[in-house]
Amino acid sequence: MTEPQTPEPGRSGVSRRGLLFGGAVAGFGAAAAIGTDALLNRGGDAPATTETEAALNGEETVAFYGTHQAGIATTPQAHATFIALDLHPETGRDALRRMMQILTDDAARLTQGLPALADSEPELGTVPARLTVTFGFGPEFVTRAADASAKPVWLGPLPAFTIDQLDPAWNGGDLLLQIAADDAFTVAHATRMLLKDTRSFASVRWTQTGFRRAHGSEKPGTTMRNLFGQVDGTSNPAPDGDDFAELVWNTEGWLAGGTGFVLRRTRMNLDKWDRVDRGGREQSVGRTLANGAPLTGTHEHDEPDFDAKTSIGFPVIPEFSHIRRARSENTAERIYRRGYNYDQAPTGSEISNSGLLFVSYQADVTKQFVPIQQRLDQLDLLNEWTTPIGSAVFAIPPGCTDGGYIGDTLLS
Amino acid sequence: MTEPQTPEPGRSGVSRRGLLFGGAVAGFGAAAAIGTDALLNRGGDAPATTETEAALNGEETVAFYGTHQAGIATTPQAHATFIALDLHPETGRDALRRMMQILTDDAARLTQGLPALADSEPELGTVPARLTVTFGFGPEFVTRAADASAKPVWLGPLPAFTIDQLDPAWNGGDLLLQIAADDAFTVAHATRMLLKDTRSFASVRWTQTGFRRAHGSEKPGTTMRNLFGQVDGTSNPAPDGDDFAELVWNTEGWLAGGTGFVLRRTRMNLDKWDRVDRGGREQSVGRTLANGAPLTGTHEHDEPDFDAKTSIGFPVIPEFSHIRRARSENTAERIYRRGYNYDQAPTGSEISNSGLLFVSYQADVTKQFVPIQQRLDQLDLLNEWTTPIGSAVFAIPPGCTDGGYIGDTLLS
Ligand code: HEM
Ligand code: HEM
Repeated sequence: MTEPQTPEPGRSGVSRRGLLFGGAVAGFGAAAAIGTDALLNRGGDAPATTETEAALNGEETVAFYGTHQAGIATTPQAHATFIALDLHPETGRDALRRMMQILTDDAARLTQGLPALADSEPELGTVPARLTVTFGFGPEFVTRAADASAKPVWLGPLPAFTIDQLDPAWNGGDLLLQIAADDAFTVAHATRMLLKDTRSFASVRWTQTGFRRAHGSEKPGTTMRNLFGQVDGTSNPAPDGDDFAELVWNTEGWLAGGTGFVLRRTRMNLDKWDRVDRGGREQSVGRTLANGAPLTGTHEHDEPDFDAKTSIGFPVIPEFSHIRRARSENTAERIYRRGYNYDQAPTGSEISNSGLLFVSYQADVTKQFVPIQQRLDQLDLLNEWTTPIGSAVFAIPPGCTDGGYIGDTLLS
Repeated sequence: MTEPQTPEPGRSGVSRRGLLFGGAVAGFGAAAAIGTDALLNRGGDAPATTETEAALNGEETVAFYGTHQAGIATTPQAHATFIALDLHPETGRDALRRMMQILTDDAARLTQGLPALADSEPELGTVPARLTVTFGFGPEFVTRAADASAKPVWLGPLPAFTIDQLDPAWNGGDLLLQIAADDAFTVAHATRMLLKDTRSFASVRWTQTGFRRAHGSEKPGTTMRNLFGQVDGTSNPAPDGDDFAELVWNTEGWLAGGTGFVLRRTRMNLDKWDRVDRGGREQSVGRTLANGAPLTGTHEHDEPDFDAKTSIGFPVIPEFSHIRRARSENTAERIYRRGYNYDQAPTGSEISNSGLLFVSYQADVTKQFVPIQQRLDQLDLLNEWTTPIGSAVFAIPPGCTDGGYIGDTLLS
């Protein structure tokens, strides 16, 4: 079994062109019908790529099959859409298996730059741009697939937090699709193909779309910023680091190799934030805006010194600061954050509709995520400008082998 | 006066880094306050770019000042947001001038990768990614700025078409902001900075966001596809071609060097489209899906042969096909199309909310756009799957010089 991600994920070195010429396309309905020529010649008469030309990012693929699902340890792509579905009342265990087999097949093809089976717009499926499709199961899915005892204890709504102002429109769901790529068009096409294949089994509950910097906008490895302008993601277990596996990958039963997924749709009040000066903003987090260095350091990755005091005896990194509150003494209480910014057209009397799709992955949501969120609920100056308005938890099953399907550890 | 666009626009060769080191930053409030160091060191400890390293697309800029506004002849960027504003009742001529001076200053800075004056998140303004900001005026703007006689005859709602199912939510407006870049985050930040500076003068009427393929997804020069999978944009005057200036740039009065802008929000019924086979789809347009070649040719840019007949005497390019109907005998009846795909989360009982932000530029809307739309209204098989649900016309004033402002030919 191959690992879907490497420390430099998304660079599988296998281009769409290579796959097509390799004959992998032969048996595919849509692709065979229109011919590989058509696929290769999409969109005009531009001369064929020569060997020496730099590979297009649009041709980069992330391996689909593996121990873990792709889209977690994968270097975050520029665009992501998260979709929660509600199962139809009549969708039982056999139907779930059929659905996951179909969706797995779609994802396996689309992520490699090949049209889905019976792809209605096969020419739109040929720019993978590091597309990943990651599936997650809600409590109802697991109960129907096996029984309630198969549910990890943490699979369900989070405990209530005083800061929450949850809108049911953004909560919960039975099946999660996380669709991410460096190209918004690729995400749109994959979304449509996958959703069409869910229609007989489920209906869309919510859709949330977010962005980071485009591929090629910044040097690889630059930590993302959020809409407050903060460097967001500095203190995060590295996918190629020693502790990542332990923190992220679950080891129990059907979920072994999978993980726990939390999405907190968090509105950021940009107008209120505008009224705070740079000093206040930096104190609220405990890091500088310029480069994300801790207030006790100069470089982004300097270790914060939580004991350092100002000349008049106050902590340099304030007690109420987000990084002090978010960091646990217990090193097992850590999470892997991989969020996206959202910025939508305001409706009604709103003046902005912006924020963070806070997304984290952790082997055990109760033991790792909840204590952090509880501490932030009690005290965190950032709460002045941020409000969780949606909350969802899913169990992300492990990856599968070619021939298997996502969810087969639960459904077969 | 320099031209804002060249045949390969967007490659000004002036990087953000160059501008900053050139000292252009010196007088700027926000940038000066945080220091150029902070800007250059944004987001971490990554080593500084060396001379030999390939320039990041994120650092590419499009010139702001020039005879024409940027964003029209500019090679289309991956992301675009179109915003229409309604002027407050009390916003008179002097206020319009003040507003356009402020917005021009914002746009001139942001497009060059420099924070806006009093930018609340200056670190977010440093990735221009070929950002362009293009302003357009609705009839009410022109009337207040000068008087009703200054309105081009075509500036106002289009004539009614039988295919229209216009939702007032997407119609009209007094001021247009067209904000486009290869990075969705850049568009979001520029949008916020510009909208903040419009607040005392106007309120948002509608916001429409669209995408094309990402930078680096496809070979430069590849014609875009729309969500039906069609190659869309083949037969279009080229910005560096002989007839572009005549077709696009107006030559009269305050609008000389400007143009007419039409946005038709056109819903595409993807589900209904799914039920048509490839033959039917290709006949509806008159071009192949594989590479956009006319049904009488083999390459995308082959000239369609409208006289060619099938063996049983029917036209190879059907009478009802979109390209036959859209093409005028009168070569002056042409437009420059520069549209974007949209794909939003369906609401209520919708199963998709997708389509095309059909955008065209033409010197005279009545003489160039209207006859085409009238012919398509009478007969065009594509109407089976497409419905105009929004319609807006703006006059795009010419560009300005450093020291001037957009709209100065009308307001000074
Ligand atoms: C809109 C909401 C939020 C914003 C804007 C935000 C922003 C930030 C920023 C700027 C940092 C410092 C840089 C870094 O290490 O990434 C940070 C760190 C962190 N945040 Fe948040 N955050 C938000 C919500 C949350 C939530 C809901 C949690 C978990 C419940 C969380 C957990 C953490 C953790 C664990 C760290 C690293 C702390 C450390 O060990 O240094 N954050 N966040
Ligand atoms: C969702 C709506 C529409 C779709 C999907 C669509 C699609 C297409 C396609 C696929 C082509 C052929 C390739 C090309 O030359 O670009 C085309 C051509 C064209 N379309 Fe449209 N179109 C739409 C609406 C419109 C509208 C509203 C107009 C103007 C009123 C228009 C005017 C044209 C013109 C002038 C051509 C070039 C015809 C020629 O000279 O060959 N289209 N369109």
